[in-house]
Amino acid sequence: MMIIMKPTATEKEIQAVIERVESAGARAHPSRGEEVTVIGAVGDREHVTRLGLDASPGVERVVPILKPFKLASAQLRHGVRSVLEIAGRRIGGQHFALIAGPCTVESRDQVLATANVVRDGGAAFLRGGAYKPRTSPYSFQGLGQEGLRLLAEAKEETGLPIVTELMDVRDLDAILEVADVIQVGARNMQNYPLLAEIGRCDRPVLIKRGLSSTLEELLMSAEYVLKEGNEDVILCERGIRTFETAYRFTLDIMAIPVLKEMTHLPVVVDPSHAAGRRDLVVPLSLAAAAAGPTASWSRFTLSPRRPSAMARRPCRPTSSPRTWIR
Amino acid sequence: MMIIMKPTATEKEIQAVIERVESAGARAHPSRGEEVTVIGAVGDREHVTRLGLDASPGVERVVPILKPFKLASAQLRHGVRSVLEIAGRRIGGQHFALIAGPCTVESRDQVLATANVVRDGGAAFLRGGAYKPRTSPYSFQGLGQEGLRLLAEAKEETGLPIVTELMDVRDLDAILEVADVIQVGARNMQNYPLLAEIGRCDRPVLIKRGLSSTLEELLMSAEYVLKEGNEDVILCERGIRTFETAYRFTLDIMAIPVLKEMTHLPVVVDPSHAAGRRDLVVPLSLAAAAAGPTASWSRFTLSPRRPSAMARRPCRPTSSPRTWIR
Amino acid sequence: MMIIMKPTATEKEIQAVIERVESAGARAHPSRGEEVTVIGAVGDREHVTRLGLDASPGVERVVPILKPFKLASAQLRHGVRSVLEIAGRRIGGQHFALIAGPCTVESRDQVLATANVVRDGGAAFLRGGAYKPRTSPYSFQGLGQEGLRLLAEAKEETGLPIVTELMDVRDLDAILEVADVIQVGARNMQNYPLLAEIGRCDRPVLIKRGLSSTLEELLMSAEYVLKEGNEDVILCERGIRTFETAYRFTLDIMAIPVLKEMTHLPVVVDPSHAAGRRDLVVPLSLAAAAAGPTASWSRFTLSPRRPSAMARRPCRPTSSPRTWIR
Amino acid sequence: MMIIMKPTATEKEIQAVIERVESAGARAHPSRGEEVTVIGAVGDREHVTRLGLDASPGVERVVPILKPFKLASAQLRHGVRSVLEIAGRRIGGQHFALIAGPCTVESRDQVLATANVVRDGGAAFLRGGAYKPRTSPYSFQGLGQEGLRLLAEAKEETGLPIVTELMDVRDLDAILEVADVIQVGARNMQNYPLLAEIGRCDRPVLIKRGLSSTLEELLMSAEYVLKEGNEDVILCERGIRTFETAYRFTLDIMAIPVLKEMTHLPVVVDPSHAAGRRDLVVPLSLAAAAAGPTASWSRFTLSPRRPSAMARRPCRPTSSPRTWIR
Repeated sequence: MMIIMKPTATEKEIQAVIERVESAGARAHPSRGEEVTVIGAVGDREHVTRLGLDASPGVERVVPILKPFKLASAQLRHGVRSVLEIAGRRIGGQHFALIAGPCTVESRDQVLATANVVRDGGAAFLRGGAYKPRTSPYSFQGLGQEGLRLLAEAKEETGLPIVTELMDVRDLDAILEVADVIQVGARNMQNYPLLAEIGRCDRPVLIKRGLSSTLEELLMSAEYVLKEGNEDVILCERGIRTFETAYRFTLDIMAIPVLKEMTHLPVVVDPSHAAGRRDLVVPLSLAAAAAGPTASWSRFTLSPRRPSAMARRPCRPTSSPRTWIR
Repeated sequence: MMIIMKPTATEKEIQAVIERVESAGARAHPSRGEEVTVIGAVGDREHVTRLGLDASPGVERVVPILKPFKLASAQLRHGVRSVLEIAGRRIGGQHFALIAGPCTVESRDQVLATANVVRDGGAAFLRGGAYKPRTSPYSFQGLGQEGLRLLAEAKEETGLPIVTELMDVRDLDAILEVADVIQVGARNMQNYPLLAEIGRCDRPVLIKRGLSSTLEELLMSAEYVLKEGNEDVILCERGIRTFETAYRFTLDIMAIPVLKEMTHLPVVVDPSHAAGRRDLVVPLSLAAAAAGPTASWSRFTLSPRRPSAMARRPCRPTSSPRTWIR
Repeated sequence: MMIIMKPTATEKEIQAVIERVESAGARAHPSRGEEVTVIGAVGDREHVTRLGLDASPGVERVVPILKPFKLASAQLRHGVRSVLEIAGRRIGGQHFALIAGPCTVESRDQVLATANVVRDGGAAFLRGGAYKPRTSPYSFQGLGQEGLRLLAEAKEETGLPIVTELMDVRDLDAILEVADVIQVGARNMQNYPLLAEIGRCDRPVLIKRGLSSTLEELLMSAEYVLKEGNEDVILCERGIRTFETAYRFTLDIMAIPVLKEMTHLPVVVDPSHAAGRRDLVVPLSLAAAAAGPTASWSRFTLSPRRPSAMARRPCRPTSSPRTWIR
Repeated sequence: MMIIMKPTATEKEIQAVIERVESAGARAHPSRGEEVTVIGAVGDREHVTRLGLDASPGVERVVPILKPFKLASAQLRHGVRSVLEIAGRRIGGQHFALIAGPCTVESRDQVLATANVVRDGGAAFLRGGAYKPRTSPYSFQGLGQEGLRLLAEAKEETGLPIVTELMDVRDLDAILEVADVIQVGARNMQNYPLLAEIGRCDRPVLIKRGLSSTLEELLMSAEYVLKEGNEDVILCERGIRTFETAYRFTLDIMAIPVLKEMTHLPVVVDPSHAAGRRDLVVPLSLAAAAAGPTASWSRFTLSPRRPSAMARRPCRPTSSPRTWIR
């Protein structure tokens, strides 16, 4: 950690910072420039952070040197990428996988018909929400337990492993009976009790990036799971919130190569939620694949005649899942 | 809801939208301009939203007309502002209240000494965290149950009502034994199972705005609590995430007058978290009070010699809580 | 334009809005719902906009229906994409072109050596700045006239057409002597006198998106050029400013398919400025090409031993321009 | 400048960075930690910056230590705030001044009537635009020379000094005949040739913060003016672009106390443009004044019956400029 002092900092203020650093068991290395003094602090990051030195008199700002995540870092595995094997499908490394399915499980007909098309289109996983986080309490919140039952039936029929969202720690046991991958949604990316509980399970988890979370924060959320012993964490970019109003969210394609440098964990992209429009899913999936992700994700449903939560109509042959795979 | 068609939309696409609107039990009012057609949809908002018309062929975009929140809206009370009375303190309307205390409860000495200063400075509530959401799993996560016990002791000694954070729905009973106001943090603003559970309690709740949540989303989170029957909701602006790197978050002072127009609920401002610097707390508190909030919030601790989570050192006499009250 | 009234708007306020709309020569179509009244205004957009109705009593907000750009819109050419032919190179439509060269022209050796490598690598255009907008007045501001002379020499030697930036309207004549494409930088995207002056020239212009400009604003800047008679406008996405600190700017790949839907103008992507890192240029160029742009842009220089403005070192064979072309 | 190396950086990469730093005439101070090496570079900031070390192999990132602005820095005047005296009015330090007037000069009647009300309301300056930057080329662009003439007449009649915007460097002489303060708009904040030209004049300039410019960038723009010899620079916060859609821009009140710490220059706030709504001007002006600015700025016009550019109707007695002054 580097503590950069203000140009107006007094010698007494500099000494006070040095003493506080050393009181936390760290070593202080002051470097006195012509205009400002910089103090390097070497030691336990957490102890020094707790000193709250950025609020001390004479301190301009504190610059962390080391990354705060450890188990998620690329260095942990010396640059070797993690590959997860889930029900015979591989995700991570050079493996490309398509995860597709309806946003929300709505009926037996819908989920079974969609699951068959998704499997025939070459998808590796079936996704579908039984519990749905909805901005409005007046919106349909998902079928709950009944939705999980339908997903189990779709898995039975198609053999596709299931990805489904956990919102409430009290539903964990029910989710574990069906899910091959537990999904943590963007709104829950920093729900730490939920992450820690999943960390104590023996089941892969896919964590979606919060809509205004930095990559470092996403990796810290992964770290909550990893720290409890669960090593099977997948990260998912799904669009961030910006000033642009032409689309719902801005899919951050740059996150893919940068995450791959920062971490060994598999990276997945969800172009459906970012765009909010079916016609952007194919170009964005291709762009994401070109930038180097290991999997792509799509809302995909087969119910043209009934009100579906997000009303994706069936993809026509020209935009079937198979065409997204390069 | 207004459905704006593309200039290239065909008559068949227009008819298809009209039919889908009517299939949801709503009435469709097409208005054909020279360049584009606009279709007004009058009826149940949720039913029409579920049609997902923004993904239909020929649709440019869908513009909602009515606000999605009802119980939180200013109109519900015909412009009369809600005033909560909590342990003899009033919050809301024209009442100004100061909520102060340590970020995190760390020890008996710390919390009792701080509580006395806070009370003597004129604060109406004592705040302090027993459970703390921390970006890093390696950071101090709070004293938990022991922290709640210390808050109870501080309440006993000073008579100040307590504001403390609930992160995990499984801790609700323990929190209810001590908290006069349950705090929901910014990271949990869209933790809907948590909000719904609090909605079923008979205890005031203070909801912090998510760091990239719109005001409408904040009011929808309040709606989750209100819908379950709990009418005592307080909203708190605490800084949003922007491109500016000179401060941790950008305190959105405009939110105060705008929220007061949108909702009858009390509005509180937390300048401490936004700034991350002690010297900005006083000017920002004054600015917030001038813009018309009903309460201000401050991290405030009295432990200069020991590592505190955010290491606020004691305020000197010139910046004591009393001077913030106008 | 739709004027959405507040639920509390009085009949008198509604009438006042109708009268003001009609006073501007437009027709007003009120639609009275159960909760709110919406007034459609049909007529000259500019006249109605100048009424400033969003500040009138009783008005909730004003929603524009028609796009404010006309000459840049995809409909102008009935969905046919514009293709520019510049010195024998095509840009736009299905044509892919690579634009490469040094950020700043620094010396004769540098520009000539780079130009040869760029041509041999398959680039269609040579880019290089003689005038450079620099955040700091103490930074090197470019060689000016001398830089233009060196670009002319590189063009003579390699046959590559030149793209170079115009910052000051007083330099237009000098730029016109050398540039095959005039570049308008992100900081000048809304420098309207500059755009209008270029609009009166007979020379293609490449306009970079401002770092917090919406796509609609970018198209309005193009409209300033088009309105004066210059039809040869190229748009360039180069990264937007977001909260993320892991990279300098966030390259907005979604802008590519969305711009292609909004406008007939060619779209180019500059991954170099967004990333600020050489190793991200290749994955981002591939992603952009997959999403459907017509050209990609790269800072590229050949001066490893001397301080260059952005110090790009020569690309090694494995990342030569040729490999970026799909 | 601190160069933070990657944990995987080799000794050769570390040496290469040290050599490059020293090749620029600076001294390199490597500090080898257990996990990473940090190299301090002491010497001419510009020379080291031009090395572009953040793109060198093995470099994680480069952290600047010193502020890039000098003449604008608070230290230049040892913490003493600059006070400008303009036509007998003081701006800066503890002086509060109100700057009010119409957004756009539209007619003789409008500008004279408004000027009288503004003076009677206690304003110190009359503002009004003769040249207007408009997003659309089809919008009214201001009266130009005729507008300047009308401002001169209003000044003659009321004695109020004039603040008016310069957009095009070719209009500078005409502006200088009328303006007591030259305004540079948000869109031109980084129009460096314009800033440098104003820097060579002997006339105060008010620079508006760009809608996504950091405070450091704003100060660098001021530095362009100061460097040329013009010391009379005023800074103006006018709202930044964020994700929030409830208002046009988010007024960044935190910028006031933070700018006052960073610079000796006077700081002004424009709440009118941020809000886009008349009813927010008073609460935001009060908030800004409470946070410590030296002046406030308001669009203010007196033409209820005619289409005005932004259609501010006359302020009623209860919201007259006088009430904004504390």
